[in-house]
Amino acid sequence: MLSEDYAAAARLRDQLQSVRSDEVLGVEQANARFYAAFERGDNSEMARCWGDGEHVRCTHPSAQCIVGRDSVLESWSLVFRSGAKLRIRTEDVEVHVAGQFAFLTCVEVVDAAAARGRLAATNIFELQQGVWKMVHHHASQASE
Amino acid sequence: MLSEDYAAAARLRDQLQSVRSDEVLGVEQANARFYAAFERGDNSEMARCWGDGEHVRCTHPSAQCIVGRDSVLESWSLVFRSGAKLRIRTEDVEVHVAGQFAFLTCVEVVDAAAARGRLAATNIFELQQGVWKMVHHHASQASE
Repeated sequence: MLSEDYAAAARLRDQLQSVRSDEVLGVEQANARFYAAFERGDNSEMARCWGDGEHVRCTHPSAQCIVGRDSVLESWSLVFRSGAKLRIRTEDVEVHVAGQFAFLTCVEVVDAAAARGRLAATNIFELQQGVWKMVHHHASQASE
Repeated sequence: MLSEDYAAAARLRDQLQSVRSDEVLGVEQANARFYAAFERGDNSEMARCWGDGEHVRCTHPSAQCIVGRDSVLESWSLVFRSGAKLRIRTEDVEVHVAGQFAFLTCVEVVDAAAARGRLAATNIFELQQGVWKMVHHHASQASE
């Protein structure tokens, strides 16, 4: 292999790495935006976080899966209705991107009047019109 | 548009529909294989159900996410160690395929000596060397 080939291969590797980093960063930002909307109880912002399509779903803690964008957003509206103050931050955010699709696992560290603890979450995102949108959220209670 | 164009478009639509059905069927079969291995407590078959890669993960009920193929398979080995009889069937299996990636939600109807109930599951599959392999499983208790 010629040295120019090595240089070209190295450039391609760096470009691919950069694209991959951008994708992971995009998913992390979409995830952060979701939790910010969750913490603020912001229905409009929550609606912007979620994608379109029949495959949009949400499994809240101790509940069965809700299917469809409208039903999912209605469930968040019910979650927010109490108006209770909530602090939520994430730890161990692990992103995997595969084309237009990405999934992420993280720990939700919740501090609220009603509940405090560490939940396990799986969040699935899809690139819709160039923007990473949530298409599924599954959160569950987890012991320490 | 000429009638030949309509006919060609209809054929293409039918072909795409057929490919999509095959993909959904493939994911459903991979999912059924996973639950059969689960029910039988079969470590070797369970190992064949799971994919390779750093993104392989598993979130068991009431637990945090386990990362990495070896750790995930070790966790199943622990689940199976008790040797307790278990019946598990699935309901409301909803598959979404996006390229090499698919996610599925379902209800796990579990009947065991220790526990009985309906759990909510999210299963993520990836096409690895032409075979749909599980890369993430998240199951949680759900009230009726």
